[in-house]
Amino acid sequence: MAECDIPDGWQARGTPPTLSRRFPFPDYPATRRFLDALAALSEQAGVHPQTINFGSGYVNVTLDATADGAADAGFARRIDALLAQG
Amino acid sequence: MAECDIPDGWQARGTPPTLSRRFPFPDYPATRRFLDALAALSEQAGVHPQTINFGSGYVNVTLDATADGAADAGFARRIDALLAQG
Repeated sequence: MAECDIPDGWQARGTPPTLSRRFPFPDYPATRRFLDALAALSEQAGVHPQTINFGSGYVNVTLDATADGAADAGFARRIDALLAQG
Repeated sequence: MAECDIPDGWQARGTPPTLSRRFPFPDYPATRRFLDALAALSEQAGVHPQTINFGSGYVNVTLDATADGAADAGFARRIDALLAQG
């Protein structure tokens, strides 16, 4: 629940808190690679974002709170880690 | 521009008109199959929706107007046709 547990770039909203972040990309292929990596991560983790909103050059991700009512900082960090994989 | 040219289930908004439709699915795998088919269609057509918003059981698609300012009814119909492919 601690605010300091929210990863950089993510915004917490509401109670229980959702976490949202906007990921910009230079073009559609890069956007698509991220979406595919995010889908693979979701399937592997068995956790799906509440909503994903995207256009050619960005992806907005919103995560539900965990079952115990906390922001899902762990899943947010795993999504951030996808960026490092290119 | 004719209203009667808008395919069933799509809503036109604004000038130039965007077209939006919500596609419900019974589960995430079905949602994912539709998203993959839509991505393949977009890449093949060289046309990308303005925005796609999705959760586990639905996909909202919004299409930009065509270059001549008309609703993109043709692309909307090609998206509808993906449903028939399962």
